[in-house]
Amino acid sequence: MKNVLLKIAYDGTDFHGWQRQPNCRTVQGELEEVLSRVCGEAIALSGTSRTDAGVHALGQQATFSGDFGIPVERIPLAVNNMLDRVGDVRIVEASEVPEDFHARFNSRGKTYRYRIRYGAEPDIFARNHCWQIPRELDIEAMKAGARLFEGTHDFRSCMAAGGQEPETTVRTIHKLEVRQSFEGTDRIPFVTLLVTGDGFLYNMVRIITGTLVEIGMGLRAPEDVTAVLESCSRSRAGRTAPPGGLYLQQVYFEDIVIGEEK
Amino acid sequence: MKNVLLKIAYDGTDFHGWQRQPNCRTVQGELEEVLSRVCGEAIALSGTSRTDAGVHALGQQATFSGDFGIPVERIPLAVNNMLDRVGDVRIVEASEVPEDFHARFNSRGKTYRYRIRYGAEPDIFARNHCWQIPRELDIEAMKAGARLFEGTHDFRSCMAAGGQEPETTVRTIHKLEVRQSFEGTDRIPFVTLLVTGDGFLYNMVRIITGTLVEIGMGLRAPEDVTAVLESCSRSRAGRTAPPGGLYLQQVYFEDIVIGEEK
Repeated sequence: MKNVLLKIAYDGTDFHGWQRQPNCRTVQGELEEVLSRVCGEAIALSGTSRTDAGVHALGQQATFSGDFGIPVERIPLAVNNMLDRVGDVRIVEASEVPEDFHARFNSRGKTYRYRIRYGAEPDIFARNHCWQIPRELDIEAMKAGARLFEGTHDFRSCMAAGGQEPETTVRTIHKLEVRQSFEGTDRIPFVTLLVTGDGFLYNMVRIITGTLVEIGMGLRAPEDVTAVLESCSRSRAGRTAPPGGLYLQQVYFEDIVIGEEK
Repeated sequence: MKNVLLKIAYDGTDFHGWQRQPNCRTVQGELEEVLSRVCGEAIALSGTSRTDAGVHALGQQATFSGDFGIPVERIPLAVNNMLDRVGDVRIVEASEVPEDFHARFNSRGKTYRYRIRYGAEPDIFARNHCWQIPRELDIEAMKAGARLFEGTHDFRSCMAAGGQEPETTVRTIHKLEVRQSFEGTDRIPFVTLLVTGDGFLYNMVRIITGTLVEIGMGLRAPEDVTAVLESCSRSRAGRTAPPGGLYLQQVYFEDIVIGEEK
């Protein structure tokens, strides 16, 4: 019996999210079908994060186990060759892990990335991969607001209805970084949010992003973040940012050490 | 009676090409429907180029005429607001032109751009917007081959079956530029072909691109281009490059002057 950990990248645009659903194209469903053919037995995948429709992943992780012949190191190439027709999902790595290791329960945290393009004519080619905002954003104000989200808080105000009710709505954001960049020959301004935490409530990153964008637009002050968190009320936070700007970047299975990453 | 020239940009990924077809989402069909609503009368568009399914445009041009009330300069905003749901097509400019001006018959030439990403793991997010080639390309060889395509030739060997038989297969390529660039924080290598000519046969740019890529891979010598052209045989040229790397960049209505453009 082998237990295998996969690292998976996908463009979420044409998927109805990660989780298998009948009659819908989902990442889990697509991978399970191909893995079952490659392994010669029915495979069930457990992913770390159930990303929503339209959300992307650079480093989703998932485990599965079975009693199959194919060497683990050959799984990425075998699966990717069978997936290649559409080309919007790929297995990046596969490694054998101890029998009791589970991509979801062993996760200690995650980093999400959110991309915002602003202050320019919309780019039709970027429409599913960033949030396009047709006005200037005050980056310093967004940074000040971001710092107030960091730490351990009750994030109930940043949780959308519709997910499973969690045992607790207290989470820790280890770091929420706001980076500005200017990209391409036209030097188009982007803001990238990098959010690392021990766990995230339903739509939490997208609601935090929506709140920070409202701060960047001058619609609310950075200090308002404290009142949002204290309210424990979804209606006090900003709008939910669209899914296409969100990327699951990394899953941590060790304690998270916040230092000077690249 | 007004005659209007539009400049149009689109991401061709989710369109069955430019040309209106029943029961298919096409750029012409989508724009005619919205223009008809904006103008309050049935609008028929004439586009300069009938781009294929999956091919993109930064500067497609099209004319239409009618006896409508909306000021021409308001057309882009009005149409774009009604198109915004999907967001993969936009009117960039609209201007009134003389009554006998026609986007197709008045065109003196076009520039197409073809993007190739090479020598790296495929990027799932770029799959519909460039041709991804998993090996090194010899750029100097491609430049040498490109020079042999320039000028006035019978391009029959670079014409796919399936289009209308043209009166002549002689065309002039004013310039075929091969540019290398290194993009993003990972400095991924790209090659961009910029092809300017007085007119193009069916799939001509994609067949020229396929031939130059085979030269870049070392599968044929740059000098082979001369033999390809002289053969007048489609089977002597390279494979047809995929549609997603191709962009209609610019249409010329004046004589083309090849100088040092940006």
